[in-house]
Amino acid sequence: MMNLSKLKVVNLVHHSYEDLELWYPVIRLREEGVTVHLAGEEAKTQYYGKHGVPATADIGFSELSPEEYHGVLIPGGWAPDKLRRYKQVTEFIRMMNEGGKPIGEICHAGWVLISANVLKGKRVTSTPAIKDDMENAGAIWADEAVIIDKNLVSSRRPIDLPIYMKYYINMLKKHYDK
Amino acid sequence: MMNLSKLKVVNLVHHSYEDLELWYPVIRLREEGVTVHLAGEEAKTQYYGKHGVPATADIGFSELSPEEYHGVLIPGGWAPDKLRRYKQVTEFIRMMNEGGKPIGEICHAGWVLISANVLKGKRVTSTPAIKDDMENAGAIWADEAVIIDKNLVSSRRPIDLPIYMKYYINMLKKHYDK
Repeated sequence: MMNLSKLKVVNLVHHSYEDLELWYPVIRLREEGVTVHLAGEEAKTQYYGKHGVPATADIGFSELSPEEYHGVLIPGGWAPDKLRRYKQVTEFIRMMNEGGKPIGEICHAGWVLISANVLKGKRVTSTPAIKDDMENAGAIWADEAVIIDKNLVSSRRPIDLPIYMKYYINMLKKHYDK
Repeated sequence: MMNLSKLKVVNLVHHSYEDLELWYPVIRLREEGVTVHLAGEEAKTQYYGKHGVPATADIGFSELSPEEYHGVLIPGGWAPDKLRRYKQVTEFIRMMNEGGKPIGEICHAGWVLISANVLKGKRVTSTPAIKDDMENAGAIWADEAVIIDKNLVSSRRPIDLPIYMKYYINMLKKHYDK
């Protein structure tokens, strides 16, 4: 089985992220030996989840470089409503997607992909709250615990985290085991 | 590799648990297919972590049965200060330990093991805050990310969660792959 310890993945963070949707993927990837960075508006800024768990950004959005990272994760909660406003974030997602790199997104994270304009014709799921936004952006939406389409893994909510991360990790292994 | 989907593990919960120390192990074991129950003072009670993440007990302490569970996990935060007061909890831990079943405990969770009287001569770690309590109970304490002694896995704090759960899952696999 492939060892992931040479990979670097970045997880995007902003205020009112869904606490477990940010942290479960971060800790889970660290368990696999992956180097995980949190990227916020500015390095060293502290953000709080919607329930109150703190998270400190390792790097700022200006340091997001598609060459440096093997994958990206976007949590839900209301952080995506903030994240989508930054050109550096949407441009980073667009370039990661062009590079075919594994993108994981859960719950409301789809908003960021909408603004990065990468959903046309893609099969996805999300919290049902943003189904209309996802479909209006050209995605093919379904209410499933996890959906894979090429380099995109999407999931609905915290209860789906076990299968979400199982699939995301499998995608990293397949993609980089060449 | 052994499939864990026939196993049942119980995770103890009470007010002011450390949010990630409760939830990372729960979600992680579910990813492995393990059935995980949360046990609180009463079934269906809602508890909040010290940062505010909610958790609802599936069963009450009166339903804790050592025959039913293959392992037990105890989170840190200040929940252990509550948990150790219940005879049903300490008796359950004592019997799980006598049965040699995998016990995982992190941070302040050592207080529960002290009151269950199962630490004499055992090598453990914990948050340094309770080192004196652990040693006074007869444990051999060290400041390490994770320590294994027979059926006991102990760890210090949230940053240790990746290695803590890697070792706990390995212990479940070894113990039940007979």
